Parts: sequence; C-alpha cells; structure tokens
Amino acid sequence: MANAPVQRMSQLMAKTLRDDPADAEVLSHKLLVRAGYVRRTAAGVWTWLPLGKKVLANVERIVREEMDAIGAQEVLLPALLPREPYEATGRWSEYGQELFRLQDRKGGDYLLGPTHEEIFTLMVKDQASSYKDLPVILYQIQTKFRDEARPRAGILRGREFLMKDSYSFDLEDEGLAQSYALHRQAYQKVFARLGLDYRICAATAGAMGGSKSEEFLAPADAGEDTFADCPNCDFAANTEAITYELKPVDAADVPAAEEIPTPDTPTIEALAGLLGVQASATLKNLLVKVDGEIVAVGVPGDREVDMGKVEAHFAPAVVEMVTAEDFVGREDLVRGYVGPQGLEKVTYIADPRVAPGTAWITGANKVNMHTKNLVAGRDFEVDAYVDVVVVQEGDPCPNCGTGLRLDRAIEIGHIFQLGRKYADALKLDVLGQNGKPVRVTMGSYGIGVSRAVAALAEQTADEQGLCWPKEVAPADVHVVAAGKALQIELALEVSEKLRAAGVRVLVDDRAGVSPGVKFTDAELIGVPQILVAGRRSAEGVLELKDRRTGEREELSVEEAIARLTA
Amino acid sequence: MANAPVQRMSQLMAKTLRDDPADAEVLSHKLLVRAGYVRRTAAGVWTWLPLGKKVLANVERIVREEMDAIGAQEVLLPALLPREPYEATGRWSEYGQELFRLQDRKGGDYLLGPTHEEIFTLMVKDQASSYKDLPVILYQIQTKFRDEARPRAGILRGREFLMKDSYSFDLEDEGLAQSYALHRQAYQKVFARLGLDYRICAATAGAMGGSKSEEFLAPADAGEDTFADCPNCDFAANTEAITYELKPVDAADVPAAEEIPTPDTPTIEALAGLLGVQASATLKNLLVKVDGEIVAVGVPGDREVDMGKVEAHFAPAVVEMVTAEDFVGREDLVRGYVGPQGLEKVTYIADPRVAPGTAWITGANKVNMHTKNLVAGRDFEVDAYVDVVVVQEGDPCPNCGTGLRLDRAIEIGHIFQLGRKYADALKLDVLGQNGKPVRVTMGSYGIGVSRAVAALAEQTADEQGLCWPKEVAPADVHVVAAGKALQIELALEVSEKLRAAGVRVLVDDRAGVSPGVKFTDAELIGVPQILVAGRRSAEGVLELKDRRTGEREELSVEEAIARLTA
Repeated sequence: MANAPVQRMSQLMAKTLRDDPADAEVLSHKLLVRAGYVRRTAAGVWTWLPLGKKVLANVERIVREEMDAIGAQEVLLPALLPREPYEATGRWSEYGQELFRLQDRKGGDYLLGPTHEEIFTLMVKDQASSYKDLPVILYQIQTKFRDEARPRAGILRGREFLMKDSYSFDLEDEGLAQSYALHRQAYQKVFARLGLDYRICAATAGAMGGSKSEEFLAPADAGEDTFADCPNCDFAANTEAITYELKPVDAADVPAAEEIPTPDTPTIEALAGLLGVQASATLKNLLVKVDGEIVAVGVPGDREVDMGKVEAHFAPAVVEMVTAEDFVGREDLVRGYVGPQGLEKVTYIADPRVAPGTAWITGANKVNMHTKNLVAGRDFEVDAYVDVVVVQEGDPCPNCGTGLRLDRAIEIGHIFQLGRKYADALKLDVLGQNGKPVRVTMGSYGIGVSRAVAALAEQTADEQGLCWPKEVAPADVHVVAAGKALQIELALEVSEKLRAAGVRVLVDDRAGVSPGVKFTDAELIGVPQILVAGRRSAEGVLELKDRRTGEREELSVEEAIARLTA
Repeated sequence: MANAPVQRMSQLMAKTLRDDPADAEVLSHKLLVRAGYVRRTAAGVWTWLPLGKKVLANVERIVREEMDAIGAQEVLLPALLPREPYEATGRWSEYGQELFRLQDRKGGDYLLGPTHEEIFTLMVKDQASSYKDLPVILYQIQTKFRDEARPRAGILRGREFLMKDSYSFDLEDEGLAQSYALHRQAYQKVFARLGLDYRICAATAGAMGGSKSEEFLAPADAGEDTFADCPNCDFAANTEAITYELKPVDAADVPAAEEIPTPDTPTIEALAGLLGVQASATLKNLLVKVDGEIVAVGVPGDREVDMGKVEAHFAPAVVEMVTAEDFVGREDLVRGYVGPQGLEKVTYIADPRVAPGTAWITGANKVNMHTKNLVAGRDFEVDAYVDVVVVQEGDPCPNCGTGLRLDRAIEIGHIFQLGRKYADALKLDVLGQNGKPVRVTMGSYGIGVSRAVAALAEQTADEQGLCWPKEVAPADVHVVAAGKALQIELALEVSEKLRAAGVRVLVDDRAGVSPGVKFTDAELIGVPQILVAGRRSAEGVLELKDRRTGEREELSVEEAIARLTA
C-alpha cells in the first residue's frame, strides 16, 4: 500500500477553536470539536473531519485485525432493513421509539438497523445447511442508527454511529461458550492495542435477550454507566446487573401494625427526624406511571430508585413520573403519606430488601399519619419483587461481602450469549451428524468503534488537549514550522523524508501563524511526537518533543528520522 | 499491517449455486449471487458476503489511494441528514420520490443522503473563512440511499449502495477547472487500476445543476445508459446529452393545410402505408400525464420518444403514460388521430426536428382523418422545444456529421462543474485577497464503488464465471485440494507458506467434495491464479492454472511460491 501523503495544516480542514462549544458538557466532546476532529450535523449526528476520520480508521483497522485473527469472516449488511424479520422476533415493536422506521415509495415498512441479529440469522439460514458448516463467526464494521431519547456527549452517544457487530453460530452450548471466549480474548487484545483502560463487568442482557453477558467498561467521568468493583475479590459488575437476594425473615415477634400521628412529615427526612429513627427503618413508596397506569415502587427510605432498572423491568412500556394532576380524583393516593396497605387499585412492586417478614414505618394513606410495624406479606402484599435501587458505594460485594467501590464508565464493548432466541424466532436449523435438524445457538458481540474514539479521548487527554496512543493517532509525528520561510522549508523537507520512510506526518506549514499558536494547536491535536523546526533550523537542528511527557531533545534531521522510524 | 489470514472454503460463508437466481436478468447479478459474493436482503438492498466484501474493500482502497494522491482529504459524513439544508437548495422536494424521508421521535424531518452537496457546503462554510483556505477537495466513501422506482440488476442499481463522493471548492472558474481536471485524471487512474474498459462521455447534468459534466461509462450489455461514439472524430456522449439543433426553415412554398380522409390509420405505420410516404414525413403526438395534467409530445413519425428525457425535462413532476380512462370526457383528444392544431387545452412540447416552418402529415383530431401540409409556427404553436427523441445508430455526429455508433454502458463515474448553485443557496463566501467576500464555486464528483464491482464482473466474466483482475480479486490465488487427506494437507501447507509470504490465499480444503465440483467452483469464483494439489501431491508437485488463459504448468512447492510472490 502506498505511504499516506503528508497532511499539511495550511490546507487541512481542521480548524481549531480556542473556546469549548456552548453545548459541550464532557471532555471528549469539547476537545474533539476544538481540535477539529468532528463537527455536529444534527442532534446526535456527527461529521468526521480529516483528523477524526484517520483516528476512526485506525480503530477500525485494529478491530478488523483482531476479529480476523479469531477466524471471524467480514461481511457488510445494509442499514436499510425490511420489517418482516424484526416483526418475527418481536423487536419491531419492542425497540420502541429508539428504532428509526420509514416507508419506501410503495409504502413498504423499513427500519434503520440498530443491530443485525435477525439479518445475520437469515444469512446463516441461507448459507449453512449442515453441522459441517458450523461453527462460524461473522462480523461487520457498519453504521448503526438508534433514535436515542437524549443524544448527548458528542460522539459518545450518537444516533448514527460506527459499530463492529459480530455473531457466532454454534450447534451446542459448549461451542457457544468457546465462541464467546474467543471474542472475550479478541476484545482484550483490541482494547489493549487501543491503549484503553477497561474492566470486564457482568451485565444485564437488556433488550437482546439471552443468558450470559459481559460489558467492557472504560472508566471515565463522562461515562453513562456505573460499575462496582470489589477491593477484596475479583468481582466487577455494571451496577445495573447487581441484584440483592430476597431473604424472608420471621415476623412472629412484630407487634400489630399501628397508625401514629406524624404532623407535617411528607418526606422521609422529616419523618425520620420526628420519630428519631434511621431512614432505613422507613418504607418509601414512589409512584410512577407505566403506559399511563399508576404503579407504586417500594424501597427502604435510605435508598434511591434507579429509574433505568424500573424502565428495564417494564420495557417496552413507557415509564413516567407522576405529576400533581395524577392525584386529582384519586382519594386512595395521599401525597406524602402513601402506604402499600391501602393501594388496592395500584400495582405494587418492591425491592427485595422489602422481603416478606420485614417491618416498616410508612404512610398511613391519611394526611399527617404514618403506620408503624407494617409487615410485608402480613399487612400488605407485594405484586412483584424487582431490584430497583441504586447501588451505593459500600454496598456489600455479592461474592465476599466487602464494601464495593463505584466508578463511572463508558461501555465500549458488550458480549452476549444469546442462545436460541433468534434461531427459534426465525427457525434456524442445520442437519446434525445424525441427520436430524439441530436448532442453532448464537452469540452477539459489539464494539462501539466511534464511541471508542471518544473513550480514548476521555482517558488520554490532559490539560493541553488530546493525547493519542501511537497506533490510534492521526499521525506519528506533528512537524511544526516555528518561524518563517526557512523553518517552513525545513519542516516540509523533513516531512517528505519521513513520509518516504513510512512515517505518517502532519506538518504545520501555515505562513503568518505565530509559533505560539502552532504549539498550542499541536498540544491540542495530540499527535504523540512533535518535531519543531525553530531557531536552529539554519543549522539543520530540530527539537523533538514527547507530547505526553513533555521531554525535549535536539536532533539533526538524520537523527530525527532515525528516531521516528525506529 | 498483518497479513490477511488464509480463507478456508470449508468454513467460508460463500455457498455457490449451480443455477441462476430466478429474479436475475443480468450477468453480474447472476454470477455474483451464484459465486457467493452477495445476497439480496430486500428489493435493491444487498448483503456483501465475505468474498464480495473483500472485492468491495479492494475497490475502495484503490479509490482512496488515487483520491489521496490528488490531495483530497477524506472525511465521513452521516447518512441521516436534517431537512433544512436540502430545503434551502430546493432538493428536499426536487428529489421527488427518490429521496428516503423519515421523522425522528420528536417529529423532526430527516432524509437519508442521496448525495451530500449541502452538507459539504456547510462544512466548508464552517471551516474556511479566507481565500487562503481554498482550494480544497474533500471526499468520503460512504453509504448512499435512493429510493429507485425500479431497483434492478442486482448491485448495479441498488437503493442502498457504496459511493465515493467528493466536492471541490474554489475561488474562481479557473480553479474549478483545475479541480475538475484533477478528478478526471484520478478517475482515469482508478479505472485503469481496476482494469475497467471505459469511455469518458459528455453528459447532462441531471438533478445536480451546473454547467460542465462528464460521465465515465463502462461498456456492458447490462448497462442502463446508452452512449454514442463517433468512428471518425473523438466525440463520445451519453445519448441523453446529445441534442439536435433547432433549425427553422422557410415554409413560404407550402400549400395551405388540408384535411384528408385516412380510414383505419390510427398508427404511423398504417398511415405511411396508406399514403405511400416515409414515416419521417408524419408527426407523431404522444400523450403523457405530468402530475396528472395531459401533455402532448410531438416527434417525427420515425423517431421514438425517450421517456427519460421527458421525465428529466419535467422533474420533479411525475410523468406517466395516459390510459384509456384519460380519454373519457375529453372530446378534444381523438385516440390515434391527435394533431397539435386542435389541442388548445393541452401543453404541446415538440422535438427540435419539428422546427418552425417544417410541414407535416398528422392527425386531424377526427376519427379516420389526417391533416397534411400542417406547418409548425403557421398552423400550430409549440409551447416548448425539448430534445426528447431516442438517439439512433447512424444519427449524425454533432461534431463532424459521421453516423454515430451506439453502445450500452454502465455509469461508473460522474464529474460535474456545479458552479455556485449550492454556494448561492447556502451563502458560502470566503474573504478574498482584497478583503471582500467571494462566493465560492464548486465541483461534485462521484464513483459508484459497489456499482464498479458489478461493472467489473460484467466486463471480465466468461463462460465459466467471474474472472477478476489481480488488484481487485478476493485473493491472489485459489488453492484447490483435488483429492483427500494428502491433497488437503499439502494445500493447507502451501497456503500457509504463501500467506506468510504476503500472498492472499483462498484454499478449497473441503473434505467430501469432489475435485470436479471444486474446479467448477474455482472457475466460478474467479480468483486469477488457481493452484491445484492433485495427483502428484505425494511428490510435492502442484499445477498452477491461469484463470483467464487456462494455461497450466506443473511446479514444485518452492517454484509455486516463487512464482506467486514474484
């Protein structure tokens, strides 16, 4: 393959900005825009400028090489997909508003693929007929579309994004476990080569269905996921995946429930203060609307409800908070004093901590009144136990009981053992060794390629700007002509020699731009090595600076080339 | 970059078929499906299987290298685009039904990009502020969407397809001419490297607007375009772009128009036969509906109307043929006997051959009656002259008058000098050297990347199947194990050695498949070199066969490796 041409800043579409964009909240969004890597085209829809496109292509190449290395076969599926297969698996409706749907000129229903389980299943159904054709792993690096409710954080959560998705097809559970293990190893290699710090965490399966699932999470303040890890054992999990065991207790000694006057105590804080008890002794009943019907959610008074878990439980139904209007005409719902013992017309779900036999102080369904000694299963019924509380720092590790640590993270990869959900829906069988049809078992595996760029930016940036690992950077070296004609000439000459030697070069050859501005831009753009043609250019002496460490060294042209091609 | 792994047919998702798919009309469609390169996902929407994806990636790489070589900068724009910029240029409605439109969850209007002039214009508006920032050429290799009325011919005309689109931005017409020339050269290099036979033809600008435009047409029976070239001079043009000059003649000597009885002559053939005249002496009046309104199209009786030209003239209005129902209640329209002299309520367009002063025999707007000596401009008015006839073999060359030759071809590239249409609509100015704003002038340039694969298949295939040029082929060599364990072992051993030497290998290592089937598959798949481990495998002797010429040669393992790495 031909060496890439030298990229000249005097011509490059990479306008740097001194100020953060007004709508940017997270570091990677600010820096990728400021350094001229990306620009917003619409909400959650981004354009990759030349430098950004190079980084994206580098990530893509690394992912491709590691997928090829586990024997996965690359294919390319369309984004425009027919409704029928997604109808067959139920995802046409289950995906809810997140799915972009459209019609063609004949009124046929289509969707823009959010993931491609259905189409890959049909592909294998077309291509494979015998056990001899399996196992197989197929992948693509392809543009995905999801109509996110809250596109945010730049390319971290877009509505159109680049993803590597792969799918494994096996005859038996053991084969699936093997395909899953291959992906797990490949992902470890990919993220190590990308230079990402990450954890492998147990995860919920979400809308995919299936049994086993792990997430690759890159710790970053901008992350939308929270993961817990144990300082004592090797437990690590997305907090969404941590569930509390239901442990019924004996309530034989608990006195009968009793209403007590509690003037002006519509909040847990006021109630606990008045009675002199811990918030954890009280039962908090949160009201939400699920597809318009009111549902009460009971959790201990010291815990917060994780709305994501509530939404996941009721998906694809839409979950909303109640408003003052919802209380109108509902005498059974007394705001601030709701208790489960009076909610006959309302579904009541509770956290497992509200186990049968536990006793609580909670609303008496009368203003300024609460009930104490109210026992779950004796004095009120729980329609369903659902783990809905926010996991807190210090909650016990499910493995060893040690207090957990919590951190924010970006989900950069996800691996699923889907099992036979899609094969059942689309009737994917092959003939087994005994001549009888065998239902195929599947895995599904994703890497957010564009998101990985944002995660890398988040993890590697410093005060001065972006700071890419070598294999991902848009160039190996950023040559800066810090001066006028003499420096520009030397910079271009060195750049050309470096290019000829196979080094990827970005050169700041802009005339009429001060050295100070060029240095600031070089730091912002974040190429790992900065080679400056400055004061000693007449002698042919350059300065090589390491972008991360700031270490500098004076070198002749030949020494610089030798160093950069080493 | 790591050497690509050996592709093993025993595992590859590339099921070959003995029979042509039932819906396939053209050679590339048949062969690409039969050889396991592509599969249909929906009408005009295709999946690229592993072999197809490799060919596609090879074409993509060649295009990228040649675009980089002219200093073009690669970017990546989204497919999901907001309505507003397309509204500003008028294309939101002008594109008609060909545009896929959709709404997001908030009811915002979006489209799937058919081409990206608008968004590139806005990108440059954001990035460039001064004459110093120009000229610039930007490109992307990206998925496009067009809701074709008649998706056909496999990947030749899909509704989702891969395209290289680029855009040039210049201050002045000379700069635009230079950017255009650079593209023209780059395209010549691309198509030469692809091994495509092609012609550069003058073209209409179509929906793009703008002045100068040329098409790169690859001659092939499956092509949807017809081009004419002159055997005498260097004239070559898409027949759509050939227009006949309007040449008024003197009608002073023509007698007055006269109605004549012509029983049972509703066709030109019957009329010419009855009167003993050439069809070219008669005027044919074709009725069409344009957005529901009837329009008559007048052409000499010996010429066919090119509906594509009619559609292009009235675009984005929808043009349909009239049906019997349209004559109901219309006494002015006498089927088979329509003449322009009676069409007061109907728009009348005519071919330039029906120039002012020319005299015709045409319908009298009465059953079984015609009118002779009917003179254009004297006896009837033409609302507009539009070149709408099908160019015929032997029509005079516009340059030198020699009879033209006609051929079918596939449009594989198109280059446009757009001028300031988009810059005007979106107000793209930069500051000129004198400090005053200068309106930018643009070019737009496309290569159908997926279509080029089909064009190559069309041009290079033979009786046995596909037959790829080396740089595009999915592998350099197809190693065939023509036998059992011994042959498979040798084939795999040689394949691994070749891979280590940087050769791209496809190996047919299938057990239980006969040599005959493997040879047939190898011919069908079309890798340029076929290396057979057959009868003399025990001695380490292989047979190397050239897929195109059929030449064979026996070689030792070492000789084969030396030959294939030469």
